[in-house]
Amino acid sequence: MVSAPPKLSRSSGQVPSSRARSLVPVGMATILPHAAKQVRCLEEQLLAQVNGWGYDEIILPTFEYLDVLAPGLEPELIEHCYQFVDRTTGRTLLLRPDATAQIARTVAMGLTGVALPLRLSYRTSVFRYEQEHAGRGREIFQVGAELIGLNDVTSDSEVIDLMIECLHTIGLQSFKVSLGHVGFIKGLLVRSGLSAQGQKLAEQAAARKDLPRLEEILAGERISKTAARAIREAPELYGQEDVLSRGRVLAAGDPALVAPLERLAQVYHLLCAAGHRDSLLLDLGEFRGFDYYDGVVFDVFAEGMGAELGGGGRYDHLIGRFGRPLPSTGFGLDVDRLFRTIEFPEEGSVPARVDYLVAAPSRATGRLTAVAAQLRRTHSRIVQQTMNGSDAALVSAAVTAGLAQQAASVVVVGAPGTGPDEVLVVESLAAHRQGGRARNLSRLAKKMGLADLVAAARRQVKERS
Amino acid sequence: MVSAPPKLSRSSGQVPSSRARSLVPVGMATILPHAAKQVRCLEEQLLAQVNGWGYDEIILPTFEYLDVLAPGLEPELIEHCYQFVDRTTGRTLLLRPDATAQIARTVAMGLTGVALPLRLSYRTSVFRYEQEHAGRGREIFQVGAELIGLNDVTSDSEVIDLMIECLHTIGLQSFKVSLGHVGFIKGLLVRSGLSAQGQKLAEQAAARKDLPRLEEILAGERISKTAARAIREAPELYGQEDVLSRGRVLAAGDPALVAPLERLAQVYHLLCAAGHRDSLLLDLGEFRGFDYYDGVVFDVFAEGMGAELGGGGRYDHLIGRFGRPLPSTGFGLDVDRLFRTIEFPEEGSVPARVDYLVAAPSRATGRLTAVAAQLRRTHSRIVQQTMNGSDAALVSAAVTAGLAQQAASVVVVGAPGTGPDEVLVVESLAAHRQGGRARNLSRLAKKMGLADLVAAARRQVKERS
Repeated sequence: MVSAPPKLSRSSGQVPSSRARSLVPVGMATILPHAAKQVRCLEEQLLAQVNGWGYDEIILPTFEYLDVLAPGLEPELIEHCYQFVDRTTGRTLLLRPDATAQIARTVAMGLTGVALPLRLSYRTSVFRYEQEHAGRGREIFQVGAELIGLNDVTSDSEVIDLMIECLHTIGLQSFKVSLGHVGFIKGLLVRSGLSAQGQKLAEQAAARKDLPRLEEILAGERISKTAARAIREAPELYGQEDVLSRGRVLAAGDPALVAPLERLAQVYHLLCAAGHRDSLLLDLGEFRGFDYYDGVVFDVFAEGMGAELGGGGRYDHLIGRFGRPLPSTGFGLDVDRLFRTIEFPEEGSVPARVDYLVAAPSRATGRLTAVAAQLRRTHSRIVQQTMNGSDAALVSAAVTAGLAQQAASVVVVGAPGTGPDEVLVVESLAAHRQGGRARNLSRLAKKMGLADLVAAARRQVKERS
Repeated sequence: MVSAPPKLSRSSGQVPSSRARSLVPVGMATILPHAAKQVRCLEEQLLAQVNGWGYDEIILPTFEYLDVLAPGLEPELIEHCYQFVDRTTGRTLLLRPDATAQIARTVAMGLTGVALPLRLSYRTSVFRYEQEHAGRGREIFQVGAELIGLNDVTSDSEVIDLMIECLHTIGLQSFKVSLGHVGFIKGLLVRSGLSAQGQKLAEQAAARKDLPRLEEILAGERISKTAARAIREAPELYGQEDVLSRGRVLAAGDPALVAPLERLAQVYHLLCAAGHRDSLLLDLGEFRGFDYYDGVVFDVFAEGMGAELGGGGRYDHLIGRFGRPLPSTGFGLDVDRLFRTIEFPEEGSVPARVDYLVAAPSRATGRLTAVAAQLRRTHSRIVQQTMNGSDAALVSAAVTAGLAQQAASVVVVGAPGTGPDEVLVVESLAAHRQGGRARNLSRLAKKMGLADLVAAARRQVKERS
């Protein structure tokens, strides 16, 4: 689960928008080629890292029966799902709102014969009615990993270590992972003597760090001043190691509070030993907001991005809700938010879109195809195009096409005066693109043997890799 | 568009199934790790080929407004869509039933400033209520390409050439591309004097090669015997070059029939020149079944797979339905059917799932993480695991874990008697996996310097690539 579930609030997104009738539903992005390439590149890098740690990808269905998946979803999240009736069975379907619940369902019901621990990864979209504002899509691209069947400190630290390495891999410069344990604040709430309802409300307020609301809830029930003070203090306990000492004071030797603190401390120290101290922020109020989390939990934030980039935590009882108790932990990252956080190279330094535009008059289409096929075998990226118009304008038309297609070079097949194994080549279009006129560029055309061209293409591919 | 749209028939899938209440909706597959790896590998190979031809990937939203997308969908397909009401706007949404229509919508409405021709590719799922039978998923994985802005023989042949190269790339051994032109049979129907309704019904029967039904339709209207004979013959005209000659006889000089035949002949000859003669089958009855096709069309079939693996064709008027007339052609492939058609290496020859399982007693977790990180830097695939139990059983427990995780080798960190830069290594677990007992295998453990281990890992990765 990447982002905390949406909160119902008075300014809910349910009200029809007053904007003009839109062509594409709100929050559903079409990702155009330039951005799509970067998004896919991010995905590949994340998956390669996750794969390197032995996590196998699993591909999950886009929608499921609500009644089957519901045990893994909290009621508030279900209210934000896209639901519809299955015409074949009359049962309610829902578009996947959360990958972790779906994996839990699959592990409990479908993957019963495999060796534990099980390391699974996914890249997928989840769908939720989110309030309309910048950076909150309704189709959310995620990459994530789940480590199933272990309940120890090393598995807690493994998934966080892996997530941090993922962020390094994609070149994310400055980010913080806030690290907490849901058991600490839950323990404080239980100890305080708050009603069950009061505990639930206080949890939600603490998760949002909504201190005035928390104050209100605490004031509404009879609990001791000391207990109230501890609950009030917890959400503000974030920082480095000293947070743990202060937590120990609040715990006052209560095993129900000391145990989560000690677990958190061990995970923190393992991660520091792995070199991640500077990326970590202990947060005793950290709560994620998903009620299936029941151990060490974490969120990632980056400067300049209000919303979290991802997160995760331990969910030892989630898979059990589907009938097979198995301790687990995992994380998910929001690929779209990562994409918007990372700085990609400027347009100007982007290489040509294709290596060669291979052009020919239509009478030479057969040779055009053959030359293009030969060049593709070098792993060059080739666009082929037949040209209409006079032979005199052939090269200049090819150069114009090459500029339009952002080709690095243009190859002309079947030009007058070239032999059967010869082509005309205009190189380095990029250098001349700005202000370069096709007519002038066509003067740079040079005759080349086909074998030499193929050898040059192969050299270029080799140099690039 | 990969597969022909579903036909409404008496044995429609709308009737609730009598099977036991299922956990996952019919036709929605969960793809488990072993298969997922192969499916992703297929996708990557297909996309790499398509990318090599200069087609840029575009990522499209999973659902759209019905009213916006409807102009690109035929009524019969709309009836087979997953539809639901958007809570925010009250408008009807539908899960993408077809990628081509969505790309047409995007090109007409959102990609107005880009240079033509435009080459776009996609990997996505489409969703349709299909009748329940083997090999008909309702979430259909597709990879496809569209060439937009050209209407010439070369562009027709380019997309077919590219599709065939895609099939070669993934190692599909024997397949046939049936190649036709919707204008030919349409021309015959127009010339015959059939009513508009009769033409539509006859088209559908011809597309299904349902000759008895075709006969019935022809008998129901007053048309000349010669015209009826020609219409009856067309769906049976498939084979090699002689099909074209017979087609010319039926055309009898009528330009409305000769033009499609000549276009088809030119595309066929270009593809033969590109070396694809053996994969081609001319089919004058080829009809695809999507009413947006209006030129050269094609399907791919493989032996032993009843349903088509993909196909495509020219749709010069589809983008115009969204307000921007642009000639176009393209293809789509059904990744799941390709996956089921291709023979993958036998289980036995599959390499180990991970390269090293790195194990340590929990007291050495810090060193475990460090060694695993060092090995990952060699691009080896690593699983790390802390071991409980006595030091005496450490290596044997690690080997057991390594066998369970299908690791090629096991590395033990922090074993008694090893120095700070030393590890114990048990290699070639795979060779001993069958019948190999952990206790016996652990006797093969040898002491190794960490630097030597890293060097060996690096060598192995290099040898593999």
